Amino acid sequence: MQNQKREPPPRILVLDPVRPSSLNQVSEEFFKAKASLGFEIECESLADAPASVEFPSDEALAAAAVARRVSQVVHQGFRAIVINCFLDPGLDAARDLTRIPVVGAGESAVRIALTAGQRFSIIDVGPIKYACRSPTRQVLSMGIAARFASIRGIGVPVLELNRRPGVTIKKIVREAKIAAAEDGADVIVLGCTALARLAERIRLNLPVVNPALSALRTAETLISLGLRRRARSS
Amino acid sequence: MQNQKREPPPRILVLDPVRPSSLNQVSEEFFKAKASLGFEIECESLADAPASVEFPSDEALAAAAVARRVSQVVHQGFRAIVINCFLDPGLDAARDLTRIPVVGAGESAVRIALTAGQRFSIIDVGPIKYACRSPTRQVLSMGIAARFASIRGIGVPVLELNRRPGVTIKKIVREAKIAAAEDGADVIVLGCTALARLAERIRLNLPVVNPALSALRTAETLISLGLRRRARSS
Amino acid sequence: MQNQKREPPPRILVLDPVRPSSLNQVSEEFFKAKASLGFEIECESLADAPASVEFPSDEALAAAAVARRVSQVVHQGFRAIVINCFLDPGLDAARDLTRIPVVGAGESAVRIALTAGQRFSIIDVGPIKYACRSPTRQVLSMGIAARFASIRGIGVPVLELNRRPGVTIKKIVREAKIAAAEDGADVIVLGCTALARLAERIRLNLPVVNPALSALRTAETLISLGLRRRARSS
Amino acid sequence: MQNQKREPPPRILVLDPVRPSSLNQVSEEFFKAKASLGFEIECESLADAPASVEFPSDEALAAAAVARRVSQVVHQGFRAIVINCFLDPGLDAARDLTRIPVVGAGESAVRIALTAGQRFSIIDVGPIKYACRSPTRQVLSMGIAARFASIRGIGVPVLELNRRPGVTIKKIVREAKIAAAEDGADVIVLGCTALARLAERIRLNLPVVNPALSALRTAETLISLGLRRRARSS
Amino acid sequence: MQNQKREPPPRILVLDPVRPSSLNQVSEEFFKAKASLGFEIECESLADAPASVEFPSDEALAAAAVARRVSQVVHQGFRAIVINCFLDPGLDAARDLTRIPVVGAGESAVRIALTAGQRFSIIDVGPIKYACRSPTRQVLSMGIAARFASIRGIGVPVLELNRRPGVTIKKIVREAKIAAAEDGADVIVLGCTALARLAERIRLNLPVVNPALSALRTAETLISLGLRRRARSS
Amino acid sequence: MQNQKREPPPRILVLDPVRPSSLNQVSEEFFKAKASLGFEIECESLADAPASVEFPSDEALAAAAVARRVSQVVHQGFRAIVINCFLDPGLDAARDLTRIPVVGAGESAVRIALTAGQRFSIIDVGPIKYACRSPTRQVLSMGIAARFASIRGIGVPVLELNRRPGVTIKKIVREAKIAAAEDGADVIVLGCTALARLAERIRLNLPVVNPALSALRTAETLISLGLRRRARSS
Repeated sequence: MQNQKREPPPRILVLDPVRPSSLNQVSEEFFKAKASLGFEIECESLADAPASVEFPSDEALAAAAVARRVSQVVHQGFRAIVINCFLDPGLDAARDLTRIPVVGAGESAVRIALTAGQRFSIIDVGPIKYACRSPTRQVLSMGIAARFASIRGIGVPVLELNRRPGVTIKKIVREAKIAAAEDGADVIVLGCTALARLAERIRLNLPVVNPALSALRTAETLISLGLRRRARSS
Repeated sequence: MQNQKREPPPRILVLDPVRPSSLNQVSEEFFKAKASLGFEIECESLADAPASVEFPSDEALAAAAVARRVSQVVHQGFRAIVINCFLDPGLDAARDLTRIPVVGAGESAVRIALTAGQRFSIIDVGPIKYACRSPTRQVLSMGIAARFASIRGIGVPVLELNRRPGVTIKKIVREAKIAAAEDGADVIVLGCTALARLAERIRLNLPVVNPALSALRTAETLISLGLRRRARSS
Repeated sequence: MQNQKREPPPRILVLDPVRPSSLNQVSEEFFKAKASLGFEIECESLADAPASVEFPSDEALAAAAVARRVSQVVHQGFRAIVINCFLDPGLDAARDLTRIPVVGAGESAVRIALTAGQRFSIIDVGPIKYACRSPTRQVLSMGIAARFASIRGIGVPVLELNRRPGVTIKKIVREAKIAAAEDGADVIVLGCTALARLAERIRLNLPVVNPALSALRTAETLISLGLRRRARSS
Repeated sequence: MQNQKREPPPRILVLDPVRPSSLNQVSEEFFKAKASLGFEIECESLADAPASVEFPSDEALAAAAVARRVSQVVHQGFRAIVINCFLDPGLDAARDLTRIPVVGAGESAVRIALTAGQRFSIIDVGPIKYACRSPTRQVLSMGIAARFASIRGIGVPVLELNRRPGVTIKKIVREAKIAAAEDGADVIVLGCTALARLAERIRLNLPVVNPALSALRTAETLISLGLRRRARSS
Repeated sequence: MQNQKREPPPRILVLDPVRPSSLNQVSEEFFKAKASLGFEIECESLADAPASVEFPSDEALAAAAVARRVSQVVHQGFRAIVINCFLDPGLDAARDLTRIPVVGAGESAVRIALTAGQRFSIIDVGPIKYACRSPTRQVLSMGIAARFASIRGIGVPVLELNRRPGVTIKKIVREAKIAAAEDGADVIVLGCTALARLAERIRLNLPVVNPALSALRTAETLISLGLRRRARSS
Repeated sequence: MQNQKREPPPRILVLDPVRPSSLNQVSEEFFKAKASLGFEIECESLADAPASVEFPSDEALAAAAVARRVSQVVHQGFRAIVINCFLDPGLDAARDLTRIPVVGAGESAVRIALTAGQRFSIIDVGPIKYACRSPTRQVLSMGIAARFASIRGIGVPVLELNRRPGVTIKKIVREAKIAAAEDGADVIVLGCTALARLAERIRLNLPVVNPALSALRTAETLISLGLRRRARSS
């Protein structure tokens, strides 16, 4: 986007839908470091959100926290909002409350994956290790299940992902290779925004989509395209 | 289900995911009047929920209110929970928090419709009158879009549905007839639990599915089948 | 459903679409024992049906037998009909002949599974042991293939299922565990009504749907909802 | 297929799944006139089948009649069987009973339509005039719903189709034009084998697929390809 | 099709979308030997096409070569055109340029497979050995993904397939058996027209669809049905 | 993306897959004006491409021209390639030839639409005015048909779109409004890159996605994400 002198740089609000912790500073640094020239970032966590978003019940609480915050900031001049969680909590609610672009990390990552390969696998985090070739409810609701190859959980809780990054990366690489060899994936989607900084250290012969960065670029793109959603659509 | 003398009758918790108002008594009366012999009903509204659930932002707040309440009642001996709203706010969250059956009015109604006809249309409420033959996100996420014919909004806000019931019924009948004639529907799903009592007065040459009653019967069925969900599934 | 004194209890006709044998008494006892208070059961086998329904050719003969019987009982005051076979032989035909609810055991079980989990696997019976992750024609025709995880055959013919129940249960449990671990299923559907009594003895960390019981509860629900199909719909 | 001197010409059994009437001779003449060089036709109606196949209950009876007849002819040296009815009654059953190709008129016509255009509409017959853009159960079960545009009923019962052929053709042309203009169809599938002879007189700027002729050519093709189904597959 | 004395036999143009080589004579002999009585074959390779069609870039060049050739032959009286490559290069383009039937080997084979079984697996060729249970872009674009079981690559480049036919057949048989046992396939589609002559030597307990022969029979059928596509449809 | 001093700015190659004409300068000006800071644009037309890409035969020729050009520029240090045509000619081929991101205008626009609304309609150009609610082959092949509402052609050939821009815009607005009111669309995708400059002048109560600009932003995003496709994937 060409800088236009008269206007102040567009501000993007990044919502970490988790309660404040030392992780938020990590998020803030990541987004500020990665923002394209000409965009400004404000990063917030939410006091009424859960500590992490791993289960559907966390998701419901996080979604309400996002909805409440978005309704407060409607008139503060942000040009886009990023919900910095793969499960996209509150995405529909936020889009209902404002016509500026609202971007979910999960939806953004999957959309990027559609152009980076033919079939994507999601590498999921959380305490349970599992594998599944049928689409999740999130993937079904996006209407793109035909491009889904599998989801594979590495069995590491969100809050432990960055404690031993080498181990985390190793587990991701292992599952991603199985996804490619056995599930037919040719692009990997990381299933958690807490992997934002680890993402660059993952070495694979496949594109690896970083959801936090995907959301940031999508927000910048939507601002630059000038798209505004229709309000209150079904 | 045969009465078994030793056990107390199973109790079903009906959650109206809206804040307390005169409507809750209506709900309570409806569910108590319609419950099958041998089941007991407790009906609650939720102080931290919105006044009505018409838009995605209402849905997010309602979902969190449901999640909070379900986490409180986990050990109170209920045998099933009904979320008495067509949009199923908090359904996934509640199922994540308890292994007893949790039933959403929308999901129940659609499931009943699958056996009552080949293609269903939803008659939606809310301020906007509209028609759409592509599946909604709720329908997509259920994975049954192939059976969906259309959704048609009658343009009456939830809180006005029961003010002039004759008008409401007339509008529902009109849209339902168009759904049958032009969209190919052979079963009609009412898209709001506030229509529970009006439902019986709708006369059509098509089956009309009442979501509140569908949810009640589904809860009773699941109790009687003894099904318990796997906890914490993705 | 509240008992209404003036009306006689609603009668449900259970059709075993197989020729008379000692198994029918088993069916009759099962349905009578499990019927909810206020419902009466009549159970019949059909002299012109095959000995068991394992293959598509059995299914065609069973379907015609069902159709003939339904056309005879149309005016006998039944309030619902259950076709007590997972393959739902004659379901469409029966629905074409009467406007009272007609319930198939397979369709009912799958519908129940949609609310008991996100992805179902069917444990099939019959002489051939097999596994398949693509939807069967029955599943395709229901329009719910997106929720299907797999079908796994245990390789035991229908008429031998109850000879050595311990062995049958062991094989079911083994396949169900594979379905959960490798196919992503979080709910199991038993693929044969001859498993009705064995079903309760199956112990799994997943809900297990019993098709005979599902059909009975669905029939009761549809009677209680007062739904009548549109006649002669395509 | 090159004639091979040593072998007798392959015989195709055409089953009209209706009870004997003057219409059968019409069928027989049609198939004999249209058979490719080197193929022989035997045409039968079935005494235990219904008079016409318009409703699902007719279909069940017709299917059983087909199944019984196929089981009798298994060893009579036919090389393929055609079920001459658009609804494909008994198709799965027949395929279960023999490994020679069994061809349904409906399935054949739809398959041909997939190569003759991008989106097909079915012009249906029977007493009810209707239009529907959601796939029928038959189309769903074929797994090709993405290519389906609509089904439109002309409101003429099967047994009256050939009484006033000019009127029938006019109604077909009218619905086909609406299917092209409003439903996006670029190929028309006639929905009844009783239209076999009328088909050639239909003039449209779209390909029109004749199900009887499609079935005959498909049978010849499958014989010539030497394909034999796997027996007793699910 | 009955021979009609007055008309010359219909000519089918077979386009090998590869540059001239010794393989073309093999193609020509195959099609001439297999053509049904009453049809004439002309077989051409294309000087501006690639040496083989294994990758998407080959496909683009082959498609343009097909389009150029079809536009030249539009008035030469052919009654159908066969594109003799499984990837169907130029199929849409050719159909856009002429209203006579244009038949792709891949599309024809898949269509035949839909009638020969319930779920098909494609045995692919090319240098890479792989397995994938998600539909390819070609399968997705046909709109029949619900019937797809898997694609399995044997890891033999096209130009080496016929060097050691025994080895090629052995690899095909091995993958086909895995497709049946693990992917649920009950019909096998050979994924390359260069396998035309090998196809008959493959012995399996499953039908095996030969794409070159499928295309030939489909062309003959479409000629005989007199179907002409609508020109310039989207 | 933060400028990194050591590296030259990433260059994006924009291929207009049409033969050189005065329109190319328009394209070049558009892309250069819209490129984000830090990216450089090179814009080319292709001498061996057709004059415009309206029909599938144009598409085949354009695809081959793209493939040839991409194979020539593989080592010229471009960081991404944009194929500036809604039909994405040569997209798969180009991706096969290089591991740098290759972006099609149609695919990019549809992906953007997935985040800008729930259901998209495409406003198509070309000589024929039409409307269709079934997915096109392009939409099917993307695997996102569940999100497609309709395609509506305005009946203006590509080369005339910019002659009377007011008329073109009026026709687009009219069809877009019908798409919203009757087809359920809540986001509009312009179906031709020749509308790039007109796009900003379209005033609607719906987001309108400009495919040329979508492709540019997608290319910039993919460069910035550092994604490289796996080579030679199926």
